Amino acid sequence: MHEKKGKKQEEPKQKLTSLEELGEFGLIDRLTTPFRTKNPTTVMGVGDDAAVIDTGTGTDGACPVHTVCLVSTDLLVEGIHFDRTYTPLKHLGYKAVVVNVSDIAAMNGIPQQITVSIAVSSWFSAEALEEIYAGIRLACEKYHIDLVGGDTSSSTSGLIISVTVIGTAPKEEIVYRSGAHPGDLICVTGDLGSAYIGLLLLEREKKVFQANPGMQPELTGFDYQIGRFLKPEARTDIRSLLQGIGVRPTSMIDISDGLASEVLHLCNQSDAGCRIYEEKIPIDPHTREIAMEFKIIPSVAALSGGEDYELLFTIPQSDYEKIRDVAGISIIGHMTVPAEGKFMITPDGKEVEITAQGWKAF
Amino acid sequence: MHEKKGKKQEEPKQKLTSLEELGEFGLIDRLTTPFRTKNPTTVMGVGDDAAVIDTGTGTDGACPVHTVCLVSTDLLVEGIHFDRTYTPLKHLGYKAVVVNVSDIAAMNGIPQQITVSIAVSSWFSAEALEEIYAGIRLACEKYHIDLVGGDTSSSTSGLIISVTVIGTAPKEEIVYRSGAHPGDLICVTGDLGSAYIGLLLLEREKKVFQANPGMQPELTGFDYQIGRFLKPEARTDIRSLLQGIGVRPTSMIDISDGLASEVLHLCNQSDAGCRIYEEKIPIDPHTREIAMEFKIIPSVAALSGGEDYELLFTIPQSDYEKIRDVAGISIIGHMTVPAEGKFMITPDGKEVEITAQGWKAF
Repeated sequence: MHEKKGKKQEEPKQKLTSLEELGEFGLIDRLTTPFRTKNPTTVMGVGDDAAVIDTGTGTDGACPVHTVCLVSTDLLVEGIHFDRTYTPLKHLGYKAVVVNVSDIAAMNGIPQQITVSIAVSSWFSAEALEEIYAGIRLACEKYHIDLVGGDTSSSTSGLIISVTVIGTAPKEEIVYRSGAHPGDLICVTGDLGSAYIGLLLLEREKKVFQANPGMQPELTGFDYQIGRFLKPEARTDIRSLLQGIGVRPTSMIDISDGLASEVLHLCNQSDAGCRIYEEKIPIDPHTREIAMEFKIIPSVAALSGGEDYELLFTIPQSDYEKIRDVAGISIIGHMTVPAEGKFMITPDGKEVEITAQGWKAF
Repeated sequence: MHEKKGKKQEEPKQKLTSLEELGEFGLIDRLTTPFRTKNPTTVMGVGDDAAVIDTGTGTDGACPVHTVCLVSTDLLVEGIHFDRTYTPLKHLGYKAVVVNVSDIAAMNGIPQQITVSIAVSSWFSAEALEEIYAGIRLACEKYHIDLVGGDTSSSTSGLIISVTVIGTAPKEEIVYRSGAHPGDLICVTGDLGSAYIGLLLLEREKKVFQANPGMQPELTGFDYQIGRFLKPEARTDIRSLLQGIGVRPTSMIDISDGLASEVLHLCNQSDAGCRIYEEKIPIDPHTREIAMEFKIIPSVAALSGGEDYELLFTIPQSDYEKIRDVAGISIIGHMTVPAEGKFMITPDGKEVEITAQGWKAF
């Protein structure tokens, strides 16, 4: 060791950029833009629900089906993505798998394997970890996927779960976010906004409980909304449903951050505009009622709430007859040329510009 | 809400199991044993350096080369796997990639893609994150891999990096931990123990600095040891080196936890015993000197230190002539039948049982 010499080093004057300032998407852009993909096996890198990897079994056409790999990863952080005061560990494990499987469904692929890495405080018991893994196992059974790897580690504070999912699909069946054309119909599966209302209900009861620990949470009658939030499902059924009726989406994305944010992704990546009709957005009637009690416009819960894990996709107008009477799929609007912008039409005919609220990671 | 009725619910009497009690390997066993792999695409699940996934391009033999995917994942947690007081962020990003790439090298595969998920405190600046990504980019360039996905999120405390790597290899070239036979020669690349000595040097200077912040760390002359710890490399070169001399390992693993732990993995998974000769373990002469100053037997640094990321592999005895004169590869012993146990022979002929020290995650 030797002593520091001379005057104290000057602090750099450069202003640093806070993560909040950039936001999640801005940050990802800034971090990943300097990277160029270069391997021939990389078909699609950052920028869709999953990466597409071609394991390259020869381009000589000798193989009857050219299968590619899909890879997606998600991080769940305690205090940011989940609150352990009202999230059972088993549900947490289940949901950690589902949100990843949903990304493979959004590529029109078939989920196959997952890896799960977990960091926990050392005072966590093996039994508590087993609860998480019981939920992971339940999801693996439900979605016919194999756990093939992972890592467990101590953490200096909260619980962190990192899941990577691997899927497969014939190369020509992959659906990207970027394939929509002006005139395409915009469709959504299931209903939206219930997960967000479920979260609000849980947060309300948490506050009551904190103010008066002698009270027990009253959540009876809200099973649907709370179930949608705590134990969502991935729409892996949509792939075969659409194949059955002979429809191939032109673009697709899963709804994790709210309808508005996802519609904008499809528009931006397909270089298109859109018109969404507010009254066409599928919302459960009871969810609609509860939203009103919370003084929230139901469509706002659907547009900005997120965590529903339904699929948003576009199809050619010529497929209208095939899909119009399919239960559980709603046509909510259509794509336009980019110059027409991205707007929602209210029931009284007003045009409201669609802006990303999304979910803020920072 | 309604009030709690009746007497306070009794706490369950069941004794919970602490993670420390189980240890890392015990815990992984306990968590993953209930899982059964079931998908035909899952060739190898948990239990090797990487999972092996067959994307199933048809088993009709029409494809000239049957390529499979390899997947491995690692979690780096601040305060557990790295100490930010002496780990430059750029090195951290580089090392996060390398430790994963090393797992693909250990399967005799070719690394192709990575996903990187990072959780940081919200007071982290975008510039600091960019430093980590600069290191990731450097490693991507060095190892010819593409960044294809990831996630960034806030964390309630320290920095956590989760990397998943995807590799490929012709199916028949994959080398598992389980393929060694009694009589096979045990080989190791490079030299061992320097990374651990590098860590001890950094820890020593940290303590001096904490006691007297006016002092600057004195690390001159220890570049090799500190470099081995802060910026290790993955031995992706070994695949083609061995191919070039016509040698195919029967089993292989990378040395992340220390030679002892890895030798035991090969023995246990191949159902074999072993004899390792202490004087054959390759240790850098300067590392040997510093170890003595620290009052550490140099071979103990190699056996229990870890983080060297060299490869440990076995080859048939009949390949002895091919490998004996290859620079940078040391033959350190041989596999035996299981009944002969797992022992190290000291220079004076004593047999010492090899026990797993490894690195404790909890």
